[in-house]
Parts: sequence; structure tokens; C-alpha cells
Amino acid sequence: MNKNSAVLKIGVIGYGYWGPNVVRNFYNTPSATVVAVCDFNPKALQRVRRTYPSMETTANPADILTRPDIDAVAIVTPISHHFSLAKAALNNGKHVFVEKPFTASVAEAEELVELAERKNLRIMVDHTFLFSGAVRKIRELMDNRTLGNLYYYDSTRVNLGLFQHDANVVWDLAPHDLSIIDHLIADGPEAIVATGEKHVNGKEDMAFITMYFPNKIIAHLNVNWLSPVKVRTTLIGGEKKMLVWNDLEADEKIKVYDKGIDKFNADEGYDLRVNYRAGDLWVPRIEQVEALALETQYFVDCVINGQNPFNDGMAGLRVVQTLEAIDRSMSQKGGMIYCDSIAPKRLMSATA
Amino acid sequence: MNKNSAVLKIGVIGYGYWGPNVVRNFYNTPSATVVAVCDFNPKALQRVRRTYPSMETTANPADILTRPDIDAVAIVTPISHHFSLAKAALNNGKHVFVEKPFTASVAEAEELVELAERKNLRIMVDHTFLFSGAVRKIRELMDNRTLGNLYYYDSTRVNLGLFQHDANVVWDLAPHDLSIIDHLIADGPEAIVATGEKHVNGKEDMAFITMYFPNKIIAHLNVNWLSPVKVRTTLIGGEKKMLVWNDLEADEKIKVYDKGIDKFNADEGYDLRVNYRAGDLWVPRIEQVEALALETQYFVDCVINGQNPFNDGMAGLRVVQTLEAIDRSMSQKGGMIYCDSIAPKRLMSATA
Amino acid sequence: MNKNSAVLKIGVIGYGYWGPNVVRNFYNTPSATVVAVCDFNPKALQRVRRTYPSMETTANPADILTRPDIDAVAIVTPISHHFSLAKAALNNGKHVFVEKPFTASVAEAEELVELAERKNLRIMVDHTFLFSGAVRKIRELMDNRTLGNLYYYDSTRVNLGLFQHDANVVWDLAPHDLSIIDHLIADGPEAIVATGEKHVNGKEDMAFITMYFPNKIIAHLNVNWLSPVKVRTTLIGGEKKMLVWNDLEADEKIKVYDKGIDKFNADEGYDLRVNYRAGDLWVPRIEQVEALALETQYFVDCVINGQNPFNDGMAGLRVVQTLEAIDRSMSQKGGMIYCDSIAPKRLMSATA
Amino acid sequence: MNKNSAVLKIGVIGYGYWGPNVVRNFYNTPSATVVAVCDFNPKALQRVRRTYPSMETTANPADILTRPDIDAVAIVTPISHHFSLAKAALNNGKHVFVEKPFTASVAEAEELVELAERKNLRIMVDHTFLFSGAVRKIRELMDNRTLGNLYYYDSTRVNLGLFQHDANVVWDLAPHDLSIIDHLIADGPEAIVATGEKHVNGKEDMAFITMYFPNKIIAHLNVNWLSPVKVRTTLIGGEKKMLVWNDLEADEKIKVYDKGIDKFNADEGYDLRVNYRAGDLWVPRIEQVEALALETQYFVDCVINGQNPFNDGMAGLRVVQTLEAIDRSMSQKGGMIYCDSIAPKRLMSATA
Repeated sequence: MNKNSAVLKIGVIGYGYWGPNVVRNFYNTPSATVVAVCDFNPKALQRVRRTYPSMETTANPADILTRPDIDAVAIVTPISHHFSLAKAALNNGKHVFVEKPFTASVAEAEELVELAERKNLRIMVDHTFLFSGAVRKIRELMDNRTLGNLYYYDSTRVNLGLFQHDANVVWDLAPHDLSIIDHLIADGPEAIVATGEKHVNGKEDMAFITMYFPNKIIAHLNVNWLSPVKVRTTLIGGEKKMLVWNDLEADEKIKVYDKGIDKFNADEGYDLRVNYRAGDLWVPRIEQVEALALETQYFVDCVINGQNPFNDGMAGLRVVQTLEAIDRSMSQKGGMIYCDSIAPKRLMSATA
Repeated sequence: MNKNSAVLKIGVIGYGYWGPNVVRNFYNTPSATVVAVCDFNPKALQRVRRTYPSMETTANPADILTRPDIDAVAIVTPISHHFSLAKAALNNGKHVFVEKPFTASVAEAEELVELAERKNLRIMVDHTFLFSGAVRKIRELMDNRTLGNLYYYDSTRVNLGLFQHDANVVWDLAPHDLSIIDHLIADGPEAIVATGEKHVNGKEDMAFITMYFPNKIIAHLNVNWLSPVKVRTTLIGGEKKMLVWNDLEADEKIKVYDKGIDKFNADEGYDLRVNYRAGDLWVPRIEQVEALALETQYFVDCVINGQNPFNDGMAGLRVVQTLEAIDRSMSQKGGMIYCDSIAPKRLMSATA
Repeated sequence: MNKNSAVLKIGVIGYGYWGPNVVRNFYNTPSATVVAVCDFNPKALQRVRRTYPSMETTANPADILTRPDIDAVAIVTPISHHFSLAKAALNNGKHVFVEKPFTASVAEAEELVELAERKNLRIMVDHTFLFSGAVRKIRELMDNRTLGNLYYYDSTRVNLGLFQHDANVVWDLAPHDLSIIDHLIADGPEAIVATGEKHVNGKEDMAFITMYFPNKIIAHLNVNWLSPVKVRTTLIGGEKKMLVWNDLEADEKIKVYDKGIDKFNADEGYDLRVNYRAGDLWVPRIEQVEALALETQYFVDCVINGQNPFNDGMAGLRVVQTLEAIDRSMSQKGGMIYCDSIAPKRLMSATA
Repeated sequence: MNKNSAVLKIGVIGYGYWGPNVVRNFYNTPSATVVAVCDFNPKALQRVRRTYPSMETTANPADILTRPDIDAVAIVTPISHHFSLAKAALNNGKHVFVEKPFTASVAEAEELVELAERKNLRIMVDHTFLFSGAVRKIRELMDNRTLGNLYYYDSTRVNLGLFQHDANVVWDLAPHDLSIIDHLIADGPEAIVATGEKHVNGKEDMAFITMYFPNKIIAHLNVNWLSPVKVRTTLIGGEKKMLVWNDLEADEKIKVYDKGIDKFNADEGYDLRVNYRAGDLWVPRIEQVEALALETQYFVDCVINGQNPFNDGMAGLRVVQTLEAIDRSMSQKGGMIYCDSIAPKRLMSATA
């Protein structure tokens, strides 16, 4: 895209549950505009026109994908369409903003990454949580060594439904944590063990995932579509401090505990002792900005400046690789899957 | 023991953290009395005499184990002494009440069970939670089919320390859930997958355990000594209703949700649909009786009536078998352990 | 209005904080439409046109008040304009929907009520909470005698700011509870005692209000603009059951306790004893409908059917009378204000 | 008492609900010992002997009051006996530790204070909360100006029963807050307004109390025996910071909010504006010491050193004066009671 052009022109495909948020945020991004929205559902397009009278609507994705004045395409459809739409967009020279999870398979993700590289186009995968005040605060507490060396990341993300026809609970709920873990932990996982069960419709509706990382860091994810209560709680334990992130809390999302264990050798040197520390609790103020607004602005900036976003196609690929590994482990009822093949990370920049 | 004798005479070995509760409850059980307490620590014995001036104290377990007028011995020591003390007690013709976990190994547990059977003596393993108002209410809700067919049992039992020298976090925290699961689920587990990590002192300080049962029932345990917050929350999902048991709540320990999924075939029969139910929430009143008081009374009754307790040596053995399976799985970083060898259950009686 | 006309035509004056909700709900009410919106602020009108491209906008209230095809006017302005706008609307033969509190004084409210009666026009005061699922459930529990005779209503409604220039904290926060109390308790208050303090800007920013009703029913309101936490909790005690309404809870807004006191005379008859009951706790499912949607529909129905709403001008008047009594009591630092003059209630209909 | 004597000898009268705690703590205070306990109830004395085999017991208070080797008497009886027992103890030259509220009337309290002064004996009123970690932390936050100038103290202290025969809910629950307020606020109250109602047994079972202090400080107490839930929550608002004290929280009793209002004059000077501040939340670690243990040690130290405790007879008198003022105000259904007559405070020392 011409850096002199005032405004990035975006077409959006998909106006279901999340699409309206993507349209609204790109619409409100100063250096961007949404020129057209596509959806198969006429009622969805009616809603578009009612809210944005001047906006063009179409039921044909090709109208967006081939339109010459569109610079970038946002794909907010069910996962099964991500690959074909993104491929067409890239082939037509358009940058791509795509919902998580990136694609339905590693092969698809790899092809898109390779294609974008070849065409020198940007891919951004919508891992919205990375732009939330909570995750940015956690990243800050890790970068400035407040937590010390990481011990573990333990997330519970459960609720009742919604059951999806083309995905199990892992592909629905785990991408949030997987992208956060990818963002917080420098190294990729070494091995994955996942268990789960299928009670309702032939796909796993609950799953328990362990990820082993270098330096004894361990991550655990508990995802469940059959929980009577909604829980969004993550414990993060570090050598120096520990925190609890409860995303359902309005005002006290992150609690940082000056609590932990001090290891030392007892006098005779033969015995390892531990001491318990318990100090104040601190609840940092979290910035109240809509995460998606930051992300759409970041996408526009990356496209205009020709910069690769940290939540790029490679980041999306790593999440899909992990999802496939989890599926493979679950199909063996907890088989150990080694992760040699997970794409190496580029150096991450913490400045979202 | 002579059924005509008015009172069961009990000797207690171990007066550390839990011992005082065991002594107090046997002391207050109408048809029992505590005649002597043993501990290696002179200060502990001082505390005994201060609280129970008439009670005999000794630093020598043999004084208890061989004393002719003692009918039963309660063993409230670290796990490493359970086997030798219980074996001596049984060999001296005494019934045994022993702390959980029953023994340090399956072999020990099997030998004790066999010995007690041969001598026609009772063993009761102190799985106190089975006598709590909460677990008895949950058992009732399962027995009367309020929950319907069970989907899952998912427990989070985490806190900061206390690190133990002769056990990992699994042997410390998991026996609670393992004995509850053994009590609630008719069949034993088919397979176990456990992961964990050792951050502090060479033994696992956090572990994640999946247990597969027949009929697609799945159990998951999250135990952690490195959590900044104490959590004691169990989700239990049934086909008809689901419940949340938060044992840290003073007044609302169990919440029963009329919430769930109804499966049905869509008209054409080719597609499975789910409907969501969401009704009232009900918090049953939980009886406020000390669990250990019920349990000590039950032990005395079982001994007097020559009846086998449901939390007998076999129940203790099954828990130790599961603990060993978990250790084996963890040592393989999540290996699948088949549970063919776990002792079959007798028909359980719900009437604690 | 002609009962045959298909649709009630509504003009809305005021598009600040609450106005957009009123416009949206009238816009979505099947038998009504919003034809024009007035606001002094050009940016507000821009927002109107952007969301409702076909809607007329004006900065001149007279355009709404005198337009012949408008049947009803919704007044969503600061309280100081309620009287003059409502009076003009009524004089022009228009029905009136007006924000709470109804007017800035009893005299104003009385004049409007009298005028509407004379012109045979409807006034509805926007006491939105009366249409919430929570208040409708509480009313149901009282009507069906679940709670038994009422003992008390005790509300805490506190938060940080927002300070208003033309009102104290009582006129800002108390109308909610006053309208609910007016809706729930058959009789009007007999006397009022209110205390408070002015810390910030010369108007009371915290107030404590006691209302005495017949039959020993007592109500208490704690309103505060200087609280570091937001609280919206009401205890309602009845002879048979008691409830806690926490409006900030997403899923468990109302908890009904089978808890209380049973009075009886001891054997000798000279001494009154009390027994404590403690049974299950029950959390009824609350209907998840937007309260304002029900209310705008109800307004339209009342206008079309020539029916008087229960939240009519008289209900608004009673709230304003109480607010004035509270102000008078506070100015005396807790003077006892007798409420002989509060307008008698018509027979209420519970069927909102 | 002879300063050289190694140990203060204490007799305790009353071994009901609270007495065992008083006996246990004096028993464990290094420089004191409990030599005898009196109670009318033989079962209570049995419990004493069982726990403290060497302790003398008696059903006759005179045995304690006149026994020459007793230095101090702790009175832990219903309030109606406080005066006569304390008077006899003082007349026999014994120091007095007495339960709150100090006496059943101001006249009684004044006579005891005068008598102790004349005899040069100490009176300590058991306002235990002043020694709790929470209140000591709050006092510290006020002394070191963390909160800034105080705006208000607003306490909710409600639960179900226990109804008492010789007191209303105010004399049962309010002394806690009244003694804390007396401890925290330098000046005494200027005026009191209290309302309440009697639903069950002819004494107020719920009451709402406002206390006006100099400098616009206002306190409010909500006490209620008819609440289905137990609440122990106090909001304390200062100009610089505000805090919430929830005494039912195990680990996070006090939350300090960097939240509030900044007042300033707008440019033209004619208009007062307010700004809102919202920063981090901080939960200071509260020392986990039994309050009563600190208090009994403090009593012993005061007696040995001839020092006047801050919770002396005058402090007890001020609470009783306030209780009488509240009763008078309630009997007038909220009459304004001026507090000229409340005893002036001595300079308080914060170092408990």
C-alpha cells in the first residue's frame, strides 16, 4: 500500500457474532475506513446498512476479494472458510486480518504464511486477548521481573456451551490461552499431554491440557463446555511473586501476591528447607481500553509501515500446531506429543 | 471385642497436627474412651495431660500396642510409620483406625488387609471427607438421581505449601478427592494420566490428574502447593443437573444448578442438536456436624457390631493403588496407566 | 390518539446518557416509532443520524412539542427542564414519558398531574427498575405471600460520583429505591428521618434515610457518592422468608433464605421465646429481558388503550413528595417529617 | 499490686460464651495466672476443671471478690451484673477487667470510674476489636495520614439473632463500632440520630444510627438481628484514600483504594469542579494475632506499671453514654440528641 494514501481501505467478510465488533473498530480507526461488508445472511447486511448507511454490502465475497481499491480484508467467518478466503485475498494483493484460530490445519496455515511472505503482505491473527489491559499488565510484570522466573501458568476457562458443529471445545476455548502463553513464554512447548471426553455430540466437550516448556515451566488448561458456572481464572506462579487473573472481575482482574517459597539449605547442608513468605496483596489498575480497538489500530499501523505484527501468521501457525498436537494427544487418551515441529518464534516485541 | 463390654478402649499413637482432633472425638464418643496417647515429642504429651489430666501418656508405641486392655489403636503418625504400627497392632489383636493415605505402598496395604481379614479385625482408613455434610449431600443427590448420569468430577485443590519431606503434593492433597471419587463412582478407574512438575524440593509440587472411568465418566484433579490462593472447588456435572462444591464457603458449600444440555435429533434425523436449560439455583442446607465425630462413632459401632466399614482397608488400598498409578504416570510425564489391577469394590452402602 | 392508527408516533427530547436507550427501545417497540429527536448538542444529533439515518433531528424542542403528527413526547433531559417541557407537551395534546425524578418540586408535579387529568392524557414516569426481572420477582414473592408479612426493606446504593450540579445524592440515587418501595409496600410512609453530610460541593453527597410505614414496616436507604466500591444490595426481611437482592450479580441477583425467627410463648406464658429457622437457600431464575423494553411497550399499550399506567404521574408525585420530605429532614439534621401530605395510592396492579 | 511480685493473680467471674476465651488468654499471659473461676452453672465449672485441672472453681462470686491473693477480677457476665461485681471488686482493692458494654447505665459507669480513681485501681473494658489486626492497621493508616482528613465511617453489622433478653440490638452489636469510632476519631460526637424497629420481642431488633462529629465527619451504623446474611463491612472514606474493611474475609480484610475526588475551582473561579481519581488497590497484610491475647497482656502490663489503659473506664463510659443517647433518640423515632454531656477524651495513645 502507498504510504502516502491517507486511509487504509478495508473490506470485512462475515457479520455474525464478532463481525460487528471488527467493523465498528476498523470504522473508528482514524487512518482506516471500512468500504464494504460481505455476509451470506441478508438480515446481517440489513443490520450493516442500518448502522452504517453509507456502507456497501454484498453477499458475494468476490466483490470484496477482487475490488481494486480495497487494501486489506478482515475475515470474520467460521474457521472452515478462513483458508480459502485468506488465500484469495493474498492472491489479490490484499493484507489479511483473520479470526482465531488462524486456520483449520497446520498445512493451511503454512501455505498462507508462505504466500504472504512471497507477496510481501501482512497477516494478523485476531488474538484479541493479547491487547487486553490484563494481558498487557501481566506481560509487563514478567518483563520487569516482578514475578521472577516463571513456575507455571494454570488456566480454567469453562462455561455452559455453545456447542459448535465444526470444532471441539479445545479449538473453541483454548486458542485464547495458547496465544497468551505463546506471548508470555519465550520458548515454545517441548511436549503436550491432553485428555478429554465427549459427552454430548461426538466432539470433546471438556479437555485438560498440560504443556511442558524448557526450564521446568509448565502450563495447564482446563476447558469445558459443560460447566454450570462460567470461570475465567488463571493462576500464574513465579519464583518471586504470584498472581491470580480473574477476567470476570470488573475492577480487580489481577491480584499480585507477595507470597511464595524461599528455598535454602539448612545448616548441615544436607537438607533443603523452604520458608513461606506472605506480604501485601496489590491490585494494579488495569487500563480500560477496548482490546480490539488497540488491535485494529496496530493492524493498520503495521500495514502502513510495512511492519510485521507480533500476532502474525507465524503466531497463528504456532497456535494451530499446538491445537493439532492437543487433538492428537486426546485421540490417544493422553498420549505424549513432542513439539519439535512447532515453528520457532521470532524475537517478540513486548510493545503491543 | 466382647459385645457386652460397655466401652471400647482406644489407644492413640501420634499427637501432632491431626492427633488432637482424633483424641478429642474418640474421647467424646459415648461408647468409647481413650486410655493412652503416645508421641515421641514430650511437649505433645504435656499438651495431652494438660487437656486430659486422667489420660496416660507414653513415648513408647509398644506401651499401646501390647497393652491388653486396649481394643483398638488409632494411628495418626506420618505415613512412613503406618505400616509397621498397624501391623503390630493387628498382630496384637487390636482393631486399627489409621490416617490417610493408608500406607506408603500397595504392598504394605495388601499385607495389612490380608492380616486383618485373617485375624477378623477391622481396619478403618480416616477418609474424613466422606463423613462431611457436603460429601454426604452430594452422595445423596447422586443416589436419588437428582444429578442423573454422571459426566465428570473436576476438583481444584490448591494452596501455598506445606511442603512435606516424605511425600509429593499428590500424596498430600489428592487422597481427599480419590477417596471421594471412590465413594461416589461405582466403578473403579480404567486408566490414569498424570502430569506435574517439581519446582522446589525435588518432589512434585503441582500435578494434574485425569482418571478415565467406564461410561465416559471422567475425573480431573488439580493439586498444587505453589498457589497464592487457597481453592477447594469441585465441579460435578450430571446429565440432569450440575453442582459446584466450594468447601471454603461457610454457608453455601453446594450449589445445585438446574442447567445443562438436552440432546435431541433434528427433524431429518441426520443432525444432533443441543438445547440449553437454565433454571433456578438451589443451595441445600448442609448439616453442621463435625465429620470426624461421625466417623469415630462409626468406627466404634463397626468394631462393636463386627461390621466392615465402607472406608475399610480395601478402600484405603484402592486409594494407594491410584496414588502409585499417578506417580508412575507422572514419572513418564503423562504416561497412560491402565488400572486393571485396582481392587474391585464391594457393594458400597451409602448409609454412612 | 386514534386507536385505529397502526403506530404511535413519538418525539424524544434529550439524547445524552440515557436518551439513546429510550430512543432505541421506542424505535424497537412494534406499535410505535420515533419520528424526531431533539438535543441542544449538535454532536448528539450527529450520533442520532448516524444510527438512524431516516430520523429527523432538531435543536429546537418546539419542533417536537408542536408537531401535529407526534402523539407522545419522551423527555430525557436534566430534571430542571422536566416541568416546562412536559407542560408544553400536555398543552399541545401529547402524552408524556418523562425521566425520573418526575419534577424538581411537588408543586410542579401536582400541576402536571392535574393538567394531564384535565386533558385526558397519560403521564408515565420512567421508574425503569419496576420493570426489571429482579423487582418483578420480588413483587411476585410478596404477592404470593412467600415472604410473609414484611418487616423491612434495607438498601445500600453507593458508588464514587458522579456529582451533579443541580441535585444532591438523594435526588440522584434514592428515586430508584423510593419508586420500588412505593411499588412494593401498599401503604405510604408515615414519617421520614434523614441524615447526611456535604463533603465536596455544598450538596449532600451521602445520606441515610429511614422511612416508617404502618404495621411496623421500616425502610432504610444508604446512598453515597463517596464510596470507593459500588454496592447495590437490598435486604428484604419478611416474617416467613428473607431475601438479598444484589443487583451487581450477573446470575444470582436474588437469594431467598428460608431463615428467620419463630416467636412463641414459653410454657409459663410470661416469656416470649424465639426459635431460629435455617433451611435451604433458593436462587430463582430471573427473566433476562431489558427492563426499558418492557416499559416502553407498556407506555405504548397504555396510550393506545387509554389505560393509566401504575408508574403514572401520581407515582412520580409520591416519589417527589418523599424526596422533598427527605431534604427537609436532612436540613434539620434528622428532623422527623410526618407524611400526611403524601398522595394516597390508587389500588396498584401488579401486572406490569 | 507489688511490682516485684512475679505474676498477676486473676480471678474470672463468668464462664459462658466468652469466658473461656478470657480464661485461656489470661492463663497464657506470661506474667499472669488465673487462680479461680466462678460461674453459677455447675457444668461450666466442670468444663473449667477438665481443661485446667489445677484451677479452683466456685459458684460464689464472693470467693473471688474477697480472696486476698487475687489482684484483679475479670467480669465476663451478662451486663446486668457488671456494676455490682465491679463495685465489689474495686471496694476489695482489685483491678477490674470487664466485658463490653461497660455497664447498663451511665450512672453506674460514672460511679465505677470515680471509685477506681479514688482507689487508684485500673479498669479495662474489653473492647477487643481495638486490639485486632484490622483496627490497628486502620488506626495506623489514619495516624500516618494515608487516608487524609476523614469524611465518614459507615458500618453494616447484621446477622440473624441471637436475641437477648436484657438488651436490644444496639447494646448487643453497636458497642463494637462505638468503641472503634471512639478510638479512631479524635473528637466525641456532637449529636446523634437513631431510628429502629421492634419486630419480635419488644426490643429494637434493627437500628440505624447517625453520629455527627466536628469537621463534618459523619458516622453511620446499621445493626440488625433479622438479617438472613451475616455482614461485617465498614466503609471508611478519607479525602486522600478510602478503605473497605470486611471482617468476614479471611485474607483480604482491608482494601485501600487510591480513589476519590479532587476538588478545584474552575478557571473563572465561580464554579467548583471535581475530578475522579482511580488508581491501584492495595491490600495490606494484617497481623494474625489473637486480639484478646494482646489485650490481656496489655491489661497485665497496665496493672503492673500503674498505667492507665486507653480502653479504660472513661472509654467504657463514653460508649455507654452513646448507647443511652441512641436509646433516647430511638424512643423518639429519630429525635436529635445533643452530646454535650459525653465525657471528654484524654489524649489517646495509638500504641496499643
